[in-house]
Amino acid sequence: MRVDGRLHNQLRPIQFDMNYIKHPEGSVLITVGDTKVICNASIDDRVPPFMRGSGKGWITAEYSMLPRATEHRNIRESSKGKISGRTMEIQRLIGRALRSVVNLEQLGEKTIWIDCDVIQADGGTRTASITGAFIAMVLAVHKIYQNKKMSSFPITDFLAAISVGIDPEKGEILDLNYIEDSTANVDMNVVMTGAGQFVELQGTGEESTFSRHQLNTLLELAEKGINELIYAQKEALGDFSNLIGKKDS
Amino acid sequence: MRVDGRLHNQLRPIQFDMNYIKHPEGSVLITVGDTKVICNASIDDRVPPFMRGSGKGWITAEYSMLPRATEHRNIRESSKGKISGRTMEIQRLIGRALRSVVNLEQLGEKTIWIDCDVIQADGGTRTASITGAFIAMVLAVHKIYQNKKMSSFPITDFLAAISVGIDPEKGEILDLNYIEDSTANVDMNVVMTGAGQFVELQGTGEESTFSRHQLNTLLELAEKGINELIYAQKEALGDFSNLIGKKDS
Amino acid sequence: MRVDGRLHNQLRPIQFDMNYIKHPEGSVLITVGDTKVICNASIDDRVPPFMRGSGKGWITAEYSMLPRATEHRNIRESSKGKISGRTMEIQRLIGRALRSVVNLEQLGEKTIWIDCDVIQADGGTRTASITGAFIAMVLAVHKIYQNKKMSSFPITDFLAAISVGIDPEKGEILDLNYIEDSTANVDMNVVMTGAGQFVELQGTGEESTFSRHQLNTLLELAEKGINELIYAQKEALGDFSNLIGKKDS
Amino acid sequence: MRVDGRLHNQLRPIQFDMNYIKHPEGSVLITVGDTKVICNASIDDRVPPFMRGSGKGWITAEYSMLPRATEHRNIRESSKGKISGRTMEIQRLIGRALRSVVNLEQLGEKTIWIDCDVIQADGGTRTASITGAFIAMVLAVHKIYQNKKMSSFPITDFLAAISVGIDPEKGEILDLNYIEDSTANVDMNVVMTGAGQFVELQGTGEESTFSRHQLNTLLELAEKGINELIYAQKEALGDFSNLIGKKDS
Amino acid sequence: MRVDGRLHNQLRPIQFDMNYIKHPEGSVLITVGDTKVICNASIDDRVPPFMRGSGKGWITAEYSMLPRATEHRNIRESSKGKISGRTMEIQRLIGRALRSVVNLEQLGEKTIWIDCDVIQADGGTRTASITGAFIAMVLAVHKIYQNKKMSSFPITDFLAAISVGIDPEKGEILDLNYIEDSTANVDMNVVMTGAGQFVELQGTGEESTFSRHQLNTLLELAEKGINELIYAQKEALGDFSNLIGKKDS
Amino acid sequence: MRVDGRLHNQLRPIQFDMNYIKHPEGSVLITVGDTKVICNASIDDRVPPFMRGSGKGWITAEYSMLPRATEHRNIRESSKGKISGRTMEIQRLIGRALRSVVNLEQLGEKTIWIDCDVIQADGGTRTASITGAFIAMVLAVHKIYQNKKMSSFPITDFLAAISVGIDPEKGEILDLNYIEDSTANVDMNVVMTGAGQFVELQGTGEESTFSRHQLNTLLELAEKGINELIYAQKEALGDFSNLIGKKDS
Repeated sequence: MRVDGRLHNQLRPIQFDMNYIKHPEGSVLITVGDTKVICNASIDDRVPPFMRGSGKGWITAEYSMLPRATEHRNIRESSKGKISGRTMEIQRLIGRALRSVVNLEQLGEKTIWIDCDVIQADGGTRTASITGAFIAMVLAVHKIYQNKKMSSFPITDFLAAISVGIDPEKGEILDLNYIEDSTANVDMNVVMTGAGQFVELQGTGEESTFSRHQLNTLLELAEKGINELIYAQKEALGDFSNLIGKKDS
Repeated sequence: MRVDGRLHNQLRPIQFDMNYIKHPEGSVLITVGDTKVICNASIDDRVPPFMRGSGKGWITAEYSMLPRATEHRNIRESSKGKISGRTMEIQRLIGRALRSVVNLEQLGEKTIWIDCDVIQADGGTRTASITGAFIAMVLAVHKIYQNKKMSSFPITDFLAAISVGIDPEKGEILDLNYIEDSTANVDMNVVMTGAGQFVELQGTGEESTFSRHQLNTLLELAEKGINELIYAQKEALGDFSNLIGKKDS
Repeated sequence: MRVDGRLHNQLRPIQFDMNYIKHPEGSVLITVGDTKVICNASIDDRVPPFMRGSGKGWITAEYSMLPRATEHRNIRESSKGKISGRTMEIQRLIGRALRSVVNLEQLGEKTIWIDCDVIQADGGTRTASITGAFIAMVLAVHKIYQNKKMSSFPITDFLAAISVGIDPEKGEILDLNYIEDSTANVDMNVVMTGAGQFVELQGTGEESTFSRHQLNTLLELAEKGINELIYAQKEALGDFSNLIGKKDS
Repeated sequence: MRVDGRLHNQLRPIQFDMNYIKHPEGSVLITVGDTKVICNASIDDRVPPFMRGSGKGWITAEYSMLPRATEHRNIRESSKGKISGRTMEIQRLIGRALRSVVNLEQLGEKTIWIDCDVIQADGGTRTASITGAFIAMVLAVHKIYQNKKMSSFPITDFLAAISVGIDPEKGEILDLNYIEDSTANVDMNVVMTGAGQFVELQGTGEESTFSRHQLNTLLELAEKGINELIYAQKEALGDFSNLIGKKDS
Repeated sequence: MRVDGRLHNQLRPIQFDMNYIKHPEGSVLITVGDTKVICNASIDDRVPPFMRGSGKGWITAEYSMLPRATEHRNIRESSKGKISGRTMEIQRLIGRALRSVVNLEQLGEKTIWIDCDVIQADGGTRTASITGAFIAMVLAVHKIYQNKKMSSFPITDFLAAISVGIDPEKGEILDLNYIEDSTANVDMNVVMTGAGQFVELQGTGEESTFSRHQLNTLLELAEKGINELIYAQKEALGDFSNLIGKKDS
Repeated sequence: MRVDGRLHNQLRPIQFDMNYIKHPEGSVLITVGDTKVICNASIDDRVPPFMRGSGKGWITAEYSMLPRATEHRNIRESSKGKISGRTMEIQRLIGRALRSVVNLEQLGEKTIWIDCDVIQADGGTRTASITGAFIAMVLAVHKIYQNKKMSSFPITDFLAAISVGIDPEKGEILDLNYIEDSTANVDMNVVMTGAGQFVELQGTGEESTFSRHQLNTLLELAEKGINELIYAQKEALGDFSNLIGKKDS
């Protein structure tokens, strides 16, 4: 049994508070166990300089934690005057992952800004951010879809992310909380689509390594978790779900 | 009648979600109309360099907005690499105001970090931050009070803040929301104690001015509003309220 | 009697060295007791991005101290690579105050940059900066006025600023020098027009508070001081004074 | 046939210029096709603050490109005043990977700084950096090993890295050059040990995805490539090779 | 005849306002034609980290211009968040030059901070800064000398600096003003001691060159100018002059 | 005899590895004793803002050292987030020196970026950078010359740089290595053209001074060294040499 009583292949309870903040075009508060992330999606009618004239849209993400989202208070990155390597890695990952399920040509020259702000952290904040950001993005894209009277919805598939890892005592486990994450030998983040394709795979064994066999077990756990997350996304999105991945008739 | 149907001297609905985030020593979500601020208080067993060896404690505050707390998305200050003048002014104001009702000698060489993070903004974010931060601070100071077995509680009075202003059509009004704030000729923030003393008074008439008579009307509105806010703070704090301002027996 | 022998309602000696620096469109060295500030006004034929196309002008201010303007040497903000919160507050205050007496539409799309550089400090540097900056601004605006052959002068009233405070022993006093400022319980900066209207009111009682009655006494002191400062401004400006606030004939 | 005539599972020519720079404790120029990276290892007798008193050592890496290592000149990160997200990701990856094959307790409280400076780039700079940095680190650690007369060598296994990817026309390929990297749908960097264990796995399908079957093919290619790289490392290290992974007798 | 009527080998009028600012240990306003620089010297009882424990003192300089010291307003370096290359070059030059005439061992572990703030610029600001900084430094060092009852004065010689250059029409000239500096082909700054030794020689021919013969002419002009400057320094310093370069009796 | 056996007027061995990096328009590795600098020249079809519309080109230089080019590892300037004063001085010097032998009008509105990256340092890195950068610039300018079918080559003369100095024991010496540079009383960098004209002269006697006579000896040494360097440049450039300084026929 794990520290919080879960089975090795069991997710923490997940919840989506839809339309959590009133101003953004898409907004959700995702809660995964004690991890809480506000995911807001904002539409900007410009694209970054390197995309101008391409006719394509762009999805970009920013990630941050409140200073006291964690057990010990962290110094704000705005006070330090620079963004840490960890934050950069996470926000690049979120943006890249989301872009893999969006038809950017169809979106036209717009940027969707995704803001993932962790207000309470207990492990898995980057994967919860992706899973929540997908919901916020669907809500925002739906506003564009309605306005532009597109023939099909520019989001091609569902997308969710989960962490898996190898505990020195309990072996391969799904959805690590903070304590588990701190003691794991191997930590892997997996992003997958509704069709079961990989989008990102980031496995790391700091001061440790893992075998091909262990990798296979981790990937199976991740696949199970992501199926459950996508089920929860469908519930939360209700009728919007039917638009995703629909081809033109 | 005002844009949201309020009387000129009427506050917006106020709510305190106590212990909103689990890690901080004190935490509250304050909601004033559509303005929502997470106020967290963290205890740090050190003081800033200029206070070391003084035997006194320190209260310092940081203020931030989620990028999409507002109608239009703002660039994060961490991305800009520096904190704006407006943010600096606000966080200096919050810290200064809170220190006026704390016995810093009694606190001993500790710093209380106050983090005010606006997750949704509709005017009055700096005054809501002060009113909420006071609650978070009381909760955190109570933890120190219990541990150190102090003879009296080091918070000497209640503290709340409100905005008042002069609308070009409706005259002097209390607790301006964002639309009212944008059109007001004169904007004033008032911080007062439970005993009705002033702590801060910041009145400004950008591209406009105000008379001594108008000032008096504004101060009366502010006093009324602050009385109501302190009443709400007492309700939220329950038994903790009785400790505030109590002298040693 | 105060530390420098003044009465509680007495200003320090004030002096304006007109056209102090040769390059700026307006320049004055203001001396208030031992406080000396070079105030330069520069005309820029552009406005900041958020004003473009508005047809209106803009007044913006920057404030700085020489490292050894004070008793102890301060590190330059250029060496620190960032501007302190205190500096930002002051320069925002100066700009805001000056804009309240300028007809920005009449100015047209120009920016007037006000540079207040404190070369020697003995308390009241921000209020001396405003009082001096007004003079430099009048000189610079006069250059535009002559060139553009305006029908009326775009400065609508005189403007000056002074500090008042509450000394723990001597009570309410006018125009605090550095020693008085360091020991005062309450510190208030007041900006007023020639017509006796308030433009800014910033009162703060760090680790202290003040009553409505004390506020009234402070405001009366401020009013007296500002009347005397505006009298001195008129003397210094000579014939220029007659242009201020004149309506079109 | 690939653009440079290689088979899908063929590495580019690899070369190690040992002791390339005279000052560092370990130095090598690694050449992989047209990619050239100077890898220097420096010994520092201190550890970062979070490690002090732990008795353990630390390995940290920095990565940079000359401005004209690439087809178009890049602005220096020192001129921009900040390090890009891409650079941070790469240097964190290099450090993490190297630490997985070092016995940090045995090293004692020392830091080994790894500097990977790309002087000419043609794809695969991060994996070439890891493969080269391993050599530089062995040389530097050997200096410590000799001085401290350790009973065993603190490097526990060989370590190398390679990229694999999916070309839209040619399918899965090994060791992508710049042109291949630009057109690949999926890009994966794999770090493995001499024992065939995974250390890092970073697969990404920007605007694309990949199946479990494709993942398996990629991993087999990577394994083949890493075996060949480690063979080349052994040749370059000569007698030093025998020390790696040796247990105490 | 030159643009301002001077002969080719004639200095502009020079003036020293001694003890110009009241707080610094040494202070002077140097005026050279229309160039005005406030030179302040501050004593700090610490030395920079790289000097600690050496028993020696240090002289360091900072140089800045008011934004409107020049014809067109310059952006403050504090607003840009960094110091320009030109500023760095100048402040390194000033510090280096002053250190050449100070017995740093005798000074003991103290730093003298020299602040040169140009309030009005008309060419030759860096050389005026050195010539004025020497005076401020003498005044400050005299305070240390009195306190520590040294047997001899730790300043070993006089020091002054001047610019010379080659005008495309008038040939070699002494002490260039701003207009002359802008059109000169060759610009050279020379720092010399009272004994006629060189301390610094910085000659540059941007988009031009100069011959050995021209160099000799320039050096003769510089020598003449520096003799006159040192004469003026002696006048300004009065009795202090006798201490400089005196050996122990 | 000097520390490395050279005569007082003897250069270290010099070598040019032409076309060292494949991407830049001009590239050379210059080796002077143990000092090695990669000099790359890149053509940019824009000029800096202050040059736009002038019809003239621009040459600008950047200089950097690998962290472990030196005996002790230096912190990267990109990590520090700012460029040191020393680096700025050097890169300004390199750009200025090169511009003195280029016909910028003839170049047209193009910028040539010179990157000097020191990969191994043993004294004289700034002068080696200039001497090598000249070669890289010639190669790049030749590309423009061919494309634009100019009637004459826009480089008007050869250019090289060398250091000279005064050793406390050995007197005036040519081409100081790191040890000699550390102990020298006087250090001078000289940049000269093929015609024997001076371009830059930077002599400094930190905590020391030098006489007119010593200056003359130093300049003669420098002239000898530069003649030899220009001879080596001609050898390296081969047929390109004939283009330099040729007038239109």
